[in-house]
Amino acid sequence: MGTKTKSAEILCIGTELLMGDIVNTNAAYIARRLAELGINLYHQSVVGDNPGRLRDSLEIAFSRADIVITTGGLGPTYDDLSKETVAAFFGRKLVLHAESLEWLESYFTRLGRPMTENNRKQAMMPEDCTVFPNPNGTAPGCAIEQDGRIAILLPGPPREMQPMMDHAVIPFLQRFQEYRLVSHNLHFFGIGESTLEEKLRALMTSSINPTVAPYAKTGEVMLRVTARVQDPAEADAIMAPALAEIDKAAGEFLYGVDVGDLQTALCRALKEKGLHVALAESCTGGMTAARLTGVPGASQVFECGICCYSNAMKEQLAGVRPGTLAQYGAVSEETARELAAGARRAGGAQIGVGITGNAGPEPSEGKPVGLVYVAVDSGWYQETITLNIARRDDDARAYIRTLASSNALNLALRACRAYPG
Amino acid sequence: MGTKTKSAEILCIGTELLMGDIVNTNAAYIARRLAELGINLYHQSVVGDNPGRLRDSLEIAFSRADIVITTGGLGPTYDDLSKETVAAFFGRKLVLHAESLEWLESYFTRLGRPMTENNRKQAMMPEDCTVFPNPNGTAPGCAIEQDGRIAILLPGPPREMQPMMDHAVIPFLQRFQEYRLVSHNLHFFGIGESTLEEKLRALMTSSINPTVAPYAKTGEVMLRVTARVQDPAEADAIMAPALAEIDKAAGEFLYGVDVGDLQTALCRALKEKGLHVALAESCTGGMTAARLTGVPGASQVFECGICCYSNAMKEQLAGVRPGTLAQYGAVSEETARELAAGARRAGGAQIGVGITGNAGPEPSEGKPVGLVYVAVDSGWYQETITLNIARRDDDARAYIRTLASSNALNLALRACRAYPG
Repeated sequence: MGTKTKSAEILCIGTELLMGDIVNTNAAYIARRLAELGINLYHQSVVGDNPGRLRDSLEIAFSRADIVITTGGLGPTYDDLSKETVAAFFGRKLVLHAESLEWLESYFTRLGRPMTENNRKQAMMPEDCTVFPNPNGTAPGCAIEQDGRIAILLPGPPREMQPMMDHAVIPFLQRFQEYRLVSHNLHFFGIGESTLEEKLRALMTSSINPTVAPYAKTGEVMLRVTARVQDPAEADAIMAPALAEIDKAAGEFLYGVDVGDLQTALCRALKEKGLHVALAESCTGGMTAARLTGVPGASQVFECGICCYSNAMKEQLAGVRPGTLAQYGAVSEETARELAAGARRAGGAQIGVGITGNAGPEPSEGKPVGLVYVAVDSGWYQETITLNIARRDDDARAYIRTLASSNALNLALRACRAYPG
Repeated sequence: MGTKTKSAEILCIGTELLMGDIVNTNAAYIARRLAELGINLYHQSVVGDNPGRLRDSLEIAFSRADIVITTGGLGPTYDDLSKETVAAFFGRKLVLHAESLEWLESYFTRLGRPMTENNRKQAMMPEDCTVFPNPNGTAPGCAIEQDGRIAILLPGPPREMQPMMDHAVIPFLQRFQEYRLVSHNLHFFGIGESTLEEKLRALMTSSINPTVAPYAKTGEVMLRVTARVQDPAEADAIMAPALAEIDKAAGEFLYGVDVGDLQTALCRALKEKGLHVALAESCTGGMTAARLTGVPGASQVFECGICCYSNAMKEQLAGVRPGTLAQYGAVSEETARELAAGARRAGGAQIGVGITGNAGPEPSEGKPVGLVYVAVDSGWYQETITLNIARRDDDARAYIRTLASSNALNLALRACRAYPG
């Protein structure tokens, strides 16, 4: 195959997708990666675990595209037939792949579980294919190249598929591309996607190299700045003007570059200054502590989180004064401040954070659903913010809690940056 | 059209889906509704805002199915061409739909915004179609019936699409259905998907009505048992033999039916008995508390969670004895037991849970990554389990923590069920 721009299709295989039991995040993930590689994608499809229909879908997909990427159907069970069907489509047999079998055996040994006969089937791979190891599961992926066509088979679980896509498939596909893409992810908090887009519309719509694309998630926006280069060393110079323009327009909301998320940014900032943070959470109920301790090495910056769901526990564990609760209520600015101070004291930390609010589903103590107070206290820096979150659908509770906890992490980050030294 | 079971396809239209900018939740939502109606769905597709490719996709979809449901492309802008393309596919014109125009005019009046000329385009509907009003936006949906084919066009935004699906499309489609599907979800913990499948292979592969299908997630398996009935009252009798067989084979691992997840099952069980649980978490760092408080109404069964990440906090907040930490280490059965007892005491709860372990990335105190102790203590019921989790990839930390916290919820559920009264 030459280096002309290829087109691809995504074909997700799984009856659970057809039944609507799971949302197809794989298609979006792969689509974004293909877009970054500059590979055109005009169709995505979903088909069940049915060899006949899968075969027909492959036929249709290859009539329109050079590359077909499948997900799913690589498991150990009788209805996992993707490898068998795709191999047959190309007239190939499945043969035992020794390295994959070894990996499977060692995987089950480490798990201390016997390897069943049907797991062995996962080491059977199409003849003459490129095998993609799966460090996160038992199903290796693979690529078959034949007659100008490329079929890429990936496992269905996102936590297996995503690393395989990033670490094996992208390098594999880059061989066919003339250019390399180099990206930086700019992470913003406290500014909405449409506001950011309005500030940067000219750049986002007119800049070709680098491209600037926004991605929104709960309460956050990420801008991905991507340069198309022949030599990665050129990337910095190509990106510099766009980065300067973005910084000028929205730098005050930028909390980190290539940093992943708020909790990772906070851990890094605390570590750099040798500080600790402590938490007292009510409505978020441990979510902020869980996000922070999800970061490897969090123990260097975090000793204690208190999840005080009842008023008694706010007094007993976080030292909130009974008078404060009686006068202002549990959902109040005053309580948030005392939670922050109490967390700081209890945890012997430089920075304390308090979160209290009503995540729903019902109003409580006359405070509406969606009202949240978040306070930070470092001695040097104190701030309390009020959130009024209007969302009222089935996901409102999770949304309110996530937004509250993100605001808490962001306040802690500000307090850390304002801390002397 | 007769009442024979129809088959459908979903065709989602939108370049933002192809680029991976948004995840296709519409396909899953519609798929689930169709499954509940007993309408077969064998394919889902995504295509961009491109009339030629959309026409080709319609051709393919109608070669395989009686009903094609599209989402997206009903907006006011120049690239929204779904109605035009589908109407042309059936050889129909677009005509002004007076009621839709009225609705649009009143919609903009209420908003206090002028209605632009391109919004008027949203009141142009295919001749002789069934119009589905959109109370949540400006784009009505519609259905075209012709030559035994049905095309259903729905708006793209989920908050407009979902109510239209529920309130207009489902009643429209029910006219064509003879059967209904009734499902129960059986939730298992502590047994792997392949082990469960080996125990139930005969049932899973041979049973036609009901069907039995497995779905795995971290540390859990769900079996969905689905009966096809004319009258929902028949479902229980049809399912009974399969349910009995499943219970006999794996009942000891079944933690709930139609209960969603471990935390919801635990909240319900605690509420039924009027009990409270309290948590002291080390390696899970608040994750168990966050899962529990994610359940609406958790405040009735949960007052306090302690996230004691350092040894000092294990002593100070959860009352672990310094001698225990010195002699056995923080990651030990003894510490887990004292954490459970300490949580119970601090929270004034009937059931206390303690979790301590090493979630990685490095060994600590000579304890390997993946070694976790979970203890439960209700006075009546005490149990401590040891986990050795072998996983060592990028997601190992999240996996170890999730599995530890799931085991904690499961132990608390057991303690709750063993509690007198």
